[in-house]
Formats: sequence, structure tokens, C-alpha cells
Amino acid sequence: MDADRLKGQLPELMREYEGYKAKGLKLNMSRGKPCPRQLDLSNAMLSDASYLDDEGNDCRNYAIKKGPCVEGIPSVRRLFAEILGVAPESVVVAGNSSLNLMFDVISGCMTHGIEPHEPWCRLPSVKFICPSPGYDRHFAICEHFGIGMVAVPMGAGGPDMDAVEVLAAEDESVKGLWASPKYSNPTGVTYSDATVDRLARMKAKAGDFRIYWDNAYVAHHLYDEGRHKLKCLFKACEEAGNPERPLLFASTSKITHSGGGLSALAAGPGNLRRILRRMSMQTIGPDKTNQLRHVNFLKSAADMEALMGAHADIIRPKFRIVLDALERNLGGLGIATWSDPRGGYFVSLDTAPGCAKRVYELALGCGVTLTKAGDTFPYGKDPNDSNIRISPTFPDEDELRLAMEILCVCVRVAAAERAE
Amino acid sequence: MDADRLKGQLPELMREYEGYKAKGLKLNMSRGKPCPRQLDLSNAMLSDASYLDDEGNDCRNYAIKKGPCVEGIPSVRRLFAEILGVAPESVVVAGNSSLNLMFDVISGCMTHGIEPHEPWCRLPSVKFICPSPGYDRHFAICEHFGIGMVAVPMGAGGPDMDAVEVLAAEDESVKGLWASPKYSNPTGVTYSDATVDRLARMKAKAGDFRIYWDNAYVAHHLYDEGRHKLKCLFKACEEAGNPERPLLFASTSKITHSGGGLSALAAGPGNLRRILRRMSMQTIGPDKTNQLRHVNFLKSAADMEALMGAHADIIRPKFRIVLDALERNLGGLGIATWSDPRGGYFVSLDTAPGCAKRVYELALGCGVTLTKAGDTFPYGKDPNDSNIRISPTFPDEDELRLAMEILCVCVRVAAAERAE
Repeated sequence: MDADRLKGQLPELMREYEGYKAKGLKLNMSRGKPCPRQLDLSNAMLSDASYLDDEGNDCRNYAIKKGPCVEGIPSVRRLFAEILGVAPESVVVAGNSSLNLMFDVISGCMTHGIEPHEPWCRLPSVKFICPSPGYDRHFAICEHFGIGMVAVPMGAGGPDMDAVEVLAAEDESVKGLWASPKYSNPTGVTYSDATVDRLARMKAKAGDFRIYWDNAYVAHHLYDEGRHKLKCLFKACEEAGNPERPLLFASTSKITHSGGGLSALAAGPGNLRRILRRMSMQTIGPDKTNQLRHVNFLKSAADMEALMGAHADIIRPKFRIVLDALERNLGGLGIATWSDPRGGYFVSLDTAPGCAKRVYELALGCGVTLTKAGDTFPYGKDPNDSNIRISPTFPDEDELRLAMEILCVCVRVAAAERAE
Repeated sequence: MDADRLKGQLPELMREYEGYKAKGLKLNMSRGKPCPRQLDLSNAMLSDASYLDDEGNDCRNYAIKKGPCVEGIPSVRRLFAEILGVAPESVVVAGNSSLNLMFDVISGCMTHGIEPHEPWCRLPSVKFICPSPGYDRHFAICEHFGIGMVAVPMGAGGPDMDAVEVLAAEDESVKGLWASPKYSNPTGVTYSDATVDRLARMKAKAGDFRIYWDNAYVAHHLYDEGRHKLKCLFKACEEAGNPERPLLFASTSKITHSGGGLSALAAGPGNLRRILRRMSMQTIGPDKTNQLRHVNFLKSAADMEALMGAHADIIRPKFRIVLDALERNLGGLGIATWSDPRGGYFVSLDTAPGCAKRVYELALGCGVTLTKAGDTFPYGKDPNDSNIRISPTFPDEDELRLAMEILCVCVRVAAAERAE
């Protein structure tokens, strides 16, 4: 659509926008939150009053028979081992927040480092490679600790690996890479096998370089057909002779209850020793009653499939609403592109360059709170000012329909203003 | 008892000891753990399937109506405010480990400091005042972060305040004081009002000096009569014009379930801002379903009294067994003294100087694992090698009787050996 036609539509679009504004909607779509119907799927878990695990351990007490178990009860380690495709001995299961696990691992690197390397707080510069757009809370952890972020663009099979390889191989201050490797937040991309292999094999100048592999959407398919399969980074790294490179994270926040789930990490023996040593200073152990509740409810990775199918049945129509609205209102206009994800929690919308911040403000004016424009990039700076993350799961379908009409008008208004 | 008589008894004592050894007992008394009957008192909590709090917030999701609540759901903040004697606005309720809260506050001081003061990782020396004997896990946190520990002796009303005041007033590297202020671990002492007032009012050279007030036994009375009352440090500090000095900690680990309880902290507005800022980088929020479970079960601090009475009824006879055994076997011999605590989880036994390590080894030889001798002091170094922490709550009464006979023989053997 040419600039003149766009410009000409502005008065009418503004009338439409003002009409939506008058409706007084108030909807927060800033985070990927499950809706109450999804949470209902796991309510049976709440009334599980058992406290003895399959080995007769009393999960109500500080320790289990063999002693403290900072690493989690045996049965829940086996469950996450299945989910993550690693051995139970490589797994630690903790409290309700995998973000907390990531934060703590990095906090430990700041104060103590990864032996024999220096604690990061003593180094003049520490940097992470940040495939972008990505997860804002990963970037926030870096900012909190003063860790520099180097953005690398995301493509169809993961980050630009040529750029990643150069950064890792040549800069000793590059100590990590953040990955949202499956049904990626926000792009929906799953890292290809070739990407996983290159990540596993590439040269890293820093001996304490690690890949922070946040497999948040490990089982979060939207469709039965064409499911993405993510190659196991853990095994690929072992095979490449870099067993200490990967740190895998997962959680049940979008499997059972976001407000009362479990988190887990998997890592090689050196990382595990270091992480468990710190944890054993930090706590007597995780909430074992909640771990048992999850084992009894989820049973196995295979049983979990059915639950994930029920989640998909609830949220698939919501993704449909988003995609239909985008197609109907913006299709063929040449002012936006968007993802049609096979799983995960987001639709990633790219407006015309220079429009995302304006769209965010316009939507906010109509009561629709989106993820802040820019937040999917390091330092909140989207170089094109074009990426918008849409989180369709929480609103009910009618609210979502209205919110999408509003969002689409905002995208058109912003594009028309820009054409002026 | 004179040395010669003691020495003469050694052969007979050793025969007795060997007899116990042959029984093949295996009992771990190293930690203050509740017994299954105590844990049973809170089983009703496990089958609470509710998820809406009194304000209609869905505790299963990431956020509550007003947004994220890293600080805990409103009703649980009110509950802990009552328990700690402060305003709900001063309270943060988190996961199952108060040790984790303490560790994290100190970890934040290491990497970020308490503004406008320097992060501790940049300082040549940071020290904590450690009233001793005290809680080994406090000391372990200091060791983990390379924080120097200055032991100060515990007396009948708390630490030697003359020594504490000089250290705090004169040394800028002194940044904290660990306190187990009520039914103290392990001595059973409660800080007197005069001690609390002096702690609140004393001069501290370091602007980032804080008192880490681990009120782990806040409601853990053993008897109805003669209950200890601890003056509120929070209010005393406010009145003294030092509102940012205290950091109060508590947990339900020995109220409901050690393996699935809640932790809380209370602090002044500056500390809270700093702590919540860090937490909001670290996690989306705490396990809110477990917070709701606790609110519904405990109801109020007043209702909790009855539960604590039921705990006391279970463990009081066990303390009796310990004290009877000590009196019967060691009374009047002049080779040991011990506490008769009014609450808390421990009996503190002081052997003749230079005997504690040997007693630990001897007991271990009979299958009784005690808290490692020395562990109740910084760096594991008891200057007199005399303190032994007895944890009577977990074993059943018959096991405990046998363990105490063994412990008493070990004390007598060690004293007789020493007399040689």
C-alpha cells in the first residue's frame, strides 16, 4: 500500500480508534499467562494429601531417608529427566520458578565464578550473546548484574550462528548465550538440528562459557501435526566433548499451575557439583510436598502429553482469533508480518519499522496493555522499533477478539502516521 | 569429682560403651527435625484444594488482580505481620526456606551492596558479629561469601553487649550481626529487653550495618508457664531512629511442615525496596497456592497458639528424657553443664573443656550422629571444645532414651580419658 493511500486513511482510522477508546476496555496482555480454564486442568493436584513418596520418604520433613535432598526427591528428578531427555543424576528440581534457578546460577558466577575461572565480579567485562527478539526477563537478569548484552538476530532455525560462533570464539569476556530454543519466546522458532550441533561444537574462548537453555515450552505444542522436535543440546554437547557447556532449564509453570509449579535444571557433573554446593548453603531443601504432588499428578512425560493436549485445545482457538484478526485487518497491506507458531505462548508481530512504540502507546490508550515495545530486545532497544509480542492465552475469547481489532487499528494508525 | 576417681572408672565405662556399641543403633540427631507425629498435626493443610484468596485472587496464576506479587499474597503478609509484630506493609512472604531469604539478602549485598554503600565484593574485608554458640548455617553463609566472623560469647540475656557495641561502633568492615534471639539455637536463651534496646540504639560505624534477626522459634514454647517474651527489635529500632537496621526472618518450618512451609522477612522501607527489586528480577513470584494453604490452615497468630501447644505436648516429654538422663548420669559429677530450655529445639550441653570432639566421635562409634562438635561456632572452632547440641525432637522416645544413655557414657569416657 502506498504512502498516500495510507495517509488518506488516517482520519477514518482515528475515528475507529476513538470508538474503541470509548469502550473502556481494560485488558493486560503483557505476559504469557494461562487462563483459568487451563489452570482448572490441574486442580486435582491440589487435593492430593499424600506425603510419602514411592521410596517411603516423608516429604513433609527437612530430609529424606538418605539425608538432605537439595537436588529434589528421586521420583521428581526422574520425571524431569524424562521431560528433558537426560539422566536423573543430571537433574536438580527446585521451587516454583525456573527464572530463580537461572538468576541464582548467574549470581553464583558473579560471586564465586566457575572454578578455576575468576568470579565475574572481578572481571572488567562480562558479556552474554542474546538472540533477539528474546525473553525480556533473561535480559533483565543481565542488566541487573551489569552483564553486557550482544544482540544476535533470530532466523528461521535459531540465532545467526555465523555471528554467534565469531563472538564465542574470539571474545574471552563472552561467558554465556541465552536461548529460548523451542517454540521460542516470542518468535515461535525452534532451533534446528544444525543450530544445536553448531552450538555444541563451536569453539568458546572462555572456559566458563555456558549456554543457558531455557526450554520453557518443551511440551507446549498447539497442534498434533507438525510438532517441532528439538535436538537434545545436552547429548550434543557430550558428544562434542563439551559436557559442561549446557545448562538446561524447564518448569511446570505452563503445565500445571504458574503460581505453584516446579522448576528444574540439568547440567554436567562439574556444573552440578558447583550449583548443589551453593544450594546446600542456601537452603535445607526445596518444597518436597509440592514435588510429590506433581509426581503423583503428572506421572510421566508420556502421561503429561494428554494434559498438554488439553491445554492446546483451550488455547488453539485463541491463537486462531489472533491470526484471523491479523489476516483480516492487516493482510496484504505490506505494513506488518507475523508468526503462525506451532507451539509456545506468543504470536510475534512485526510492524513497519519505527511503529512498535507508537502501537504500544495507542493500544494502552484503549486499555490494552501489551508487552512493552522493545522489551523483547536487550536494553529494551528494538533496532527497528517493530516487534510486538502478542500473548493470546489469558483473555477470554470475546475480550481477545476486541483487543485484536484494537491492536490492528493501532498498527494501521501508526503506519499511516509514519507515512505522513 | 577428682581426676584419680575419674581415671579409675575408665575401664568400667569402656565396657559399658562397648556394650552399647554392640546394639548397632543408627540414629541421626544432628539436626532439629520435627517428628512424624508433629508433622501429622498439619496434615489437614495438604488436602486444601482452594485457590481463591479472600480478595478473589487466583493463586494458581503468575499474578494477582493488582499485578505481580513478589511480596506474597495480602492475607499471608497479614498473618506473618501478626506473628512478627509488625505492619503487613513491612513483610515479604516467600518460599519454604528462611535460610534462602537470608542467603539471598547477603548475596545481594555482595553483588550490589546497600546503596549508597559499595557492593561488599569490592571491599577488602567484610565482617559479621557472631554470638556463639549459634546456628551453624548462619556461619556457613558467611564462610561461603568469605565474610569474616567475629565470635562474641552468649550470656543469659543474649550476646556480650559490651563487646558487640565496641565492634559495631569502631570497625567499618563490621556489616552485620547474626541473631537467634528467641529460644536461641542452641542455648535456649532469649535476648533480654535491655539487649534488644542496646542493639537498637548502639552506634554502628558502617551505614550498611544490619542485624540479621532469625526469629526461627518465635512461637515455639515448651511450657505454658514462664514463656519467654522477646521485645520487638523492629519497633525498638524505629524508636531509636534506626529503622533500616533490623532484618527479621521467620518460617513455618517447625509450625507446619519443614519440607513444605513458608518463609518471611520484615524490614524497613529502604531494605524492602532493595530486596523486592532484586526479587522481581529473580522470580515472577512465590508459590502462592502454598501461601493460601497456610493462611487457610493457620488462620491467625492466635489460632496458631493451639497448634504450637500440640507441638509442645509431643516434644516436651522428649526434652524431659534428655534432662532426666543428663541429671541421672552426669549430675553432680562436675564434668558437664546443660540448659533446661523453655522453648526451641535444642538442649545445649557443655562438657569439660577439650572433650566435645571426643564425645562426638565416641557417640558416632555407637551409631549416634550428633551435630558435629564445633559446628555451633564460627569456622567450626569451639574455643573450649566443650559444646554439644542435642536435638531431641525427631527420635521416638525409646530411641532417645537409649541415645541419651550412650551420650552420657561418652561424656564420662571422654572426661575420664582427659583426666589421664
